[in-house]
Amino acid sequence: MSQLQQALRSLEDTFGRRFNATSAMRESHGRDESWHEAALPDAVVFPESSAEVQRIVSVCAEYGVPIVPWGTGTGLEGAVCAVRGGVSVDLSEMNNIVAVHPEDLDAVVQPAVTHRALNQHLKTSGLFFPVDPGADASLGGMAATRASGTNAVRYGTMRENVLALEVVLADGRIIRTGTRAKKSSAGYDLTRLFVGSEGTLGIITELSLRLFGTPESIAVAVCPFETLEGAVETVIATIQSGIPVARIELLDELQIKSINDFSGLSLPEKNTLFLEFHGSENSTEEQALFVEALASECGGGDFQWRTKTEERQELWRARHNVAYACKKLRPGAELWATDVCVPISRLAECILETKKDLEKTSLLAPLVGHVGDGNFHLTILVKPEIASEVEEAKRLNQRLVERAIAMDGTCTGEHGVGLGKREYLLKEHGEGLSVMKTLKDALDPQGLMNPGKIFLES
Amino acid sequence: MSQLQQALRSLEDTFGRRFNATSAMRESHGRDESWHEAALPDAVVFPESSAEVQRIVSVCAEYGVPIVPWGTGTGLEGAVCAVRGGVSVDLSEMNNIVAVHPEDLDAVVQPAVTHRALNQHLKTSGLFFPVDPGADASLGGMAATRASGTNAVRYGTMRENVLALEVVLADGRIIRTGTRAKKSSAGYDLTRLFVGSEGTLGIITELSLRLFGTPESIAVAVCPFETLEGAVETVIATIQSGIPVARIELLDELQIKSINDFSGLSLPEKNTLFLEFHGSENSTEEQALFVEALASECGGGDFQWRTKTEERQELWRARHNVAYACKKLRPGAELWATDVCVPISRLAECILETKKDLEKTSLLAPLVGHVGDGNFHLTILVKPEIASEVEEAKRLNQRLVERAIAMDGTCTGEHGVGLGKREYLLKEHGEGLSVMKTLKDALDPQGLMNPGKIFLES
Repeated sequence: MSQLQQALRSLEDTFGRRFNATSAMRESHGRDESWHEAALPDAVVFPESSAEVQRIVSVCAEYGVPIVPWGTGTGLEGAVCAVRGGVSVDLSEMNNIVAVHPEDLDAVVQPAVTHRALNQHLKTSGLFFPVDPGADASLGGMAATRASGTNAVRYGTMRENVLALEVVLADGRIIRTGTRAKKSSAGYDLTRLFVGSEGTLGIITELSLRLFGTPESIAVAVCPFETLEGAVETVIATIQSGIPVARIELLDELQIKSINDFSGLSLPEKNTLFLEFHGSENSTEEQALFVEALASECGGGDFQWRTKTEERQELWRARHNVAYACKKLRPGAELWATDVCVPISRLAECILETKKDLEKTSLLAPLVGHVGDGNFHLTILVKPEIASEVEEAKRLNQRLVERAIAMDGTCTGEHGVGLGKREYLLKEHGEGLSVMKTLKDALDPQGLMNPGKIFLES
Repeated sequence: MSQLQQALRSLEDTFGRRFNATSAMRESHGRDESWHEAALPDAVVFPESSAEVQRIVSVCAEYGVPIVPWGTGTGLEGAVCAVRGGVSVDLSEMNNIVAVHPEDLDAVVQPAVTHRALNQHLKTSGLFFPVDPGADASLGGMAATRASGTNAVRYGTMRENVLALEVVLADGRIIRTGTRAKKSSAGYDLTRLFVGSEGTLGIITELSLRLFGTPESIAVAVCPFETLEGAVETVIATIQSGIPVARIELLDELQIKSINDFSGLSLPEKNTLFLEFHGSENSTEEQALFVEALASECGGGDFQWRTKTEERQELWRARHNVAYACKKLRPGAELWATDVCVPISRLAECILETKKDLEKTSLLAPLVGHVGDGNFHLTILVKPEIASEVEEAKRLNQRLVERAIAMDGTCTGEHGVGLGKREYLLKEHGEGLSVMKTLKDALDPQGLMNPGKIFLES
């Protein structure tokens, strides 16, 4: 019996019906929501506690079997693809909200709690958790990817909003990184090391998260622009003026068309900003008037307010569903989402040059972005079976990444490296990449934790 | 000739007059501003560039000689004491502001630029850098210590405000961590790993820092309280209400007395909050009225406004000089500053129990704190030659640290571990401490980078 078979038998003995090696289950755990090709695990295990995760990791370590953590499978860079087989650790049973401490503005959750589930739970508390990627991703997966979303421009990403983690390491030890104190100088920042490590250093089994008070007043507006440039210039001026805008999202004409179709809206098909302001009644009004004046100088129309809660929810739901709206634009296509992030002063140049590149291709690719952070996505709709299209997408993405890095930006603002960005890390980090590999080797000497991710294998 | 002598000769050959092994120079580089006993380096070298730092590190690595980076020597936990001798790398010649990018709200500086020098430089730009420890510390040292200060409650600490670093590693390689993008998911967060590493993983030779727009309106008030408890309860209620207070500092009666004496103020000798609000005229007024009402419910007097710029500066200068004010309270004494940070809901309990402990001792120890973060200091004035006093201080500090850790807080909010907090890290981090040691061993296998700091030597 092979090492792999021995490991699987041991896990099956322990987990019984929570161990599953059927093809259906393996297939459902071999890929995420992106274009990346499926790569199936040999089995899927559903632990219910940190101790059970520890048990899985220990068995896999003993037999040299790869371990791939699974949250909701909503990633966009293939981080859950089991490229070397092994065991998919599906954390969906670990979905309890362990504690909410309203008096300290923090919460403790298990990794499979999603950001919407947490916010639903917080609904009557007057508190909310701000990090909101489009998909209803698990908070463990969001920490692993260093995810962000529409509120990051004001409230930060998972980097800023994870206070502490519990992590099962490659050797089966469980550690807790950080405390519930808001700040600390007590040694190395292990929390930030595991945030963004994509399961390659350990499995996150619990998270302490920062919460925020629901603002007294929320104002939401839509603003269509004559030109894409005008919309981007408005964003740049807003950020440079220091207005604490809560959300400032750009959608190009095609993206607006797609969400009109998918979400049943009837927005003018123009390059458009969605804006949200938080504060007291007075301060949201002040902020909004200021930004409206900036927009008007850049060819923006009047702000169209969404005053009712339902109208606001409808708008943001449509925004969060852009991935699905894009898919509907071209049935049968897969999503290849680019994700560069650049210094805000370079954003217009980066977007406009990328649009020019896009025009020279045959590709369909709506643009949407968390532009207040300098982060935007082209959602390229590719049919993986058409090789020439994949090649075109690859070239477009590569030129975009190189442009962003040349602007002192990053190849990925929030989607993670996974499989898709590995080849760009050397250009972005230089010698720093080998330091990352040193850390990886130190914490996972057998190379079993989500192998093949972040680092190109030699 | 010993290895050490060979290293020193090589450095002297290279650096000439910027190599100095006189007793006076060694003595001036053997201790910081705290009670920790001096431990002299064998020589001090003054590099002028990253390449020169690289040269020093390479020579020391070749001969197995310890390396201790030096910024301004204003630390409080002995992080610059050369407990195993070796070379003090005084970075004071690397004090250029390399670039300010107002359009991106960031700046690039060499490590010896101090926070006041940077803000002086930014004075006419409408921008400022918020992290402001009491001493005019170097930004490199502040990053190394993960420092904070009075603005952290609103603007974050060095953790949030360092975008990227250039670091010379133990093997002499130079890396750059991060880009100028505001967020990234491109691999492990090396920036956050080096922030707070206290020179034990490498030497910071350049920093990219976030800047903020100077607020349109700044309102500063002083509010004396009938009781210490009332002052703390006001802070807790303010934070819990989500008011984005820019500064909220607590000074106890003795601390007020000390700054009246040292800085020539005439504040009532009561437990007092210093408050600052940032925003538009309307929003600072709204915030201030709200907090004033909270204070009044907790036995606070009316806010005494500091409306003129000079009055505000005088107040904050006095606050920043508390360490020197404390020293004047008891000439000849050294500073033993405690630095716990706890969840805000536990702050009153933590402070009041600590005050009770203090009353049972013979020690003089004013209290001051960045209480909005749950962080406060007792500045214990000890005469190191009086053994019983040092023992008392040690016991008081130990009880305080254990109390904070039991409250899920940290032994150090902003001063770092250095020599003074090493013994508490196991209790705070458990197995996490051994993970830190694994990282240390991976990046500094010879153990030459600021040895004896953070980790107790076995």
